[in-house]
Amino acid sequence: MPRYALRIEYHGAPFAGWQRQSDQASVQGAIEAALAKLEPGEHTIAAAGRTDAGVHARAQVAHCDMAKAWEPFRLSEALNHHLRPEPVAITACAAVPEDFHARFSATWRSYTYRILVRRAPPVLAGGQVWRVPGPLDAAAMAEGAAHLLGKHDFTTFRSAMCQAASPVKTLDRCEVEEVATEAGTEIRLHLSARSFLHNQVRSIAGSLERVGRGAWPPARIAEALAAADRAACGPVAPPDGLIMTGVGYDPDPFA
Amino acid sequence: MPRYALRIEYHGAPFAGWQRQSDQASVQGAIEAALAKLEPGEHTIAAAGRTDAGVHARAQVAHCDMAKAWEPFRLSEALNHHLRPEPVAITACAAVPEDFHARFSATWRSYTYRILVRRAPPVLAGGQVWRVPGPLDAAAMAEGAAHLLGKHDFTTFRSAMCQAASPVKTLDRCEVEEVATEAGTEIRLHLSARSFLHNQVRSIAGSLERVGRGAWPPARIAEALAAADRAACGPVAPPDGLIMTGVGYDPDPFA
Repeated sequence: MPRYALRIEYHGAPFAGWQRQSDQASVQGAIEAALAKLEPGEHTIAAAGRTDAGVHARAQVAHCDMAKAWEPFRLSEALNHHLRPEPVAITACAAVPEDFHARFSATWRSYTYRILVRRAPPVLAGGQVWRVPGPLDAAAMAEGAAHLLGKHDFTTFRSAMCQAASPVKTLDRCEVEEVATEAGTEIRLHLSARSFLHNQVRSIAGSLERVGRGAWPPARIAEALAAADRAACGPVAPPDGLIMTGVGYDPDPFA
Repeated sequence: MPRYALRIEYHGAPFAGWQRQSDQASVQGAIEAALAKLEPGEHTIAAAGRTDAGVHARAQVAHCDMAKAWEPFRLSEALNHHLRPEPVAITACAAVPEDFHARFSATWRSYTYRILVRRAPPVLAGGQVWRVPGPLDAAAMAEGAAHLLGKHDFTTFRSAMCQAASPVKTLDRCEVEEVATEAGTEIRLHLSARSFLHNQVRSIAGSLERVGRGAWPPARIAEALAAADRAACGPVAPPDGLIMTGVGYDPDPFA
């Protein structure tokens, strides 16, 4: 069967997460329902990362198998037509070899966590930032973040529900960016790794926020990591601020 | 009575516009209802610009009169508390002299119109851009926009419902900016004037989009302006892409 890679943008708010659920709306379910409008029958798609309820994506990647050969642009247009009015859009589509797997072929994933520092509720960035009254010390947060770079046992920053075989992951990027936006100061955490543990980014974001507000010294991030103990983690940051920003493959199917 | 200036951010989608309506939700109505929670009785507030249904604001300004003197920060916090979950937030509050009037004291207003050039529906920028398949020629749009700068009879770019005494306005800024965003190329039109006619920005945006897509040569903007005839206007652009970005006062009450 012809296989296609889909690059997907979605707003996580109305969904119980990526993964199909029998009784709740999911991004996977929305796309599979749109596929069934194009070719009747069951469709099962696989994604690079199964994002949690409320988490967004600018460039999630999934693959689907079709009975007939589609011109990729036509497939994306037809899917977008049937996806409306769900906040899910196919932003790119490409034919891929049958051994391409959105999850297993991925060589890296990247996420950004957005913290908006201000008093007033975030109206225009609604649901896409974690609003913190602040102030936050971005330099201290960067110092804390640097301890996480590289290969570590991330047990501290891993949900109890995580099903990964090993808690050892390698963070290739863990940067703190401070941006003056029209809505206020934004702190963006940029993380990249071959793969992530469940809740890893939100656990790190919640811990770094404690450093930013001065409740923790930056060195406490290193101590929390070394403890390899979930109890040493800061509060898990809310899903609103998290967005999956990209997935890498070699070769890039969308190039 | 103590008077306060409020700087207001709102998402226009759920509202029939700024102005209070007996039978529909409005931004003015939402804020007046919040004020009534703080001090019982009728409240009537005035804004710098009465935005249309679906139009957003990052920094609308309104003033309100209170029975008792409020510490401005406390007033904004109390209003934000009562405004939830409406997508309206008070981002600044200042005590002002009794002769300050949000509408009549304003010396300039600024708006930005956002056009997102891409095929896929805009999910994360949902409702805050006009999505156009494109491509759009930003340089041609800038050439067209330049004809509108300065003092002109803007009858062509004025809604039939406009109640302004004169169609003559002075555009102090009419710029086209092309920005590469993570969601795709965005064309932003930045307009500033002492005051605007009804639907002026959206009429200009719709006409410049015709230039961008090559349907009109840039000189047609000058011809349309000179015609002083509503029939010479391009299609009025949708409200989604329009945002009120600022209002000027001398002195600035929020400085």
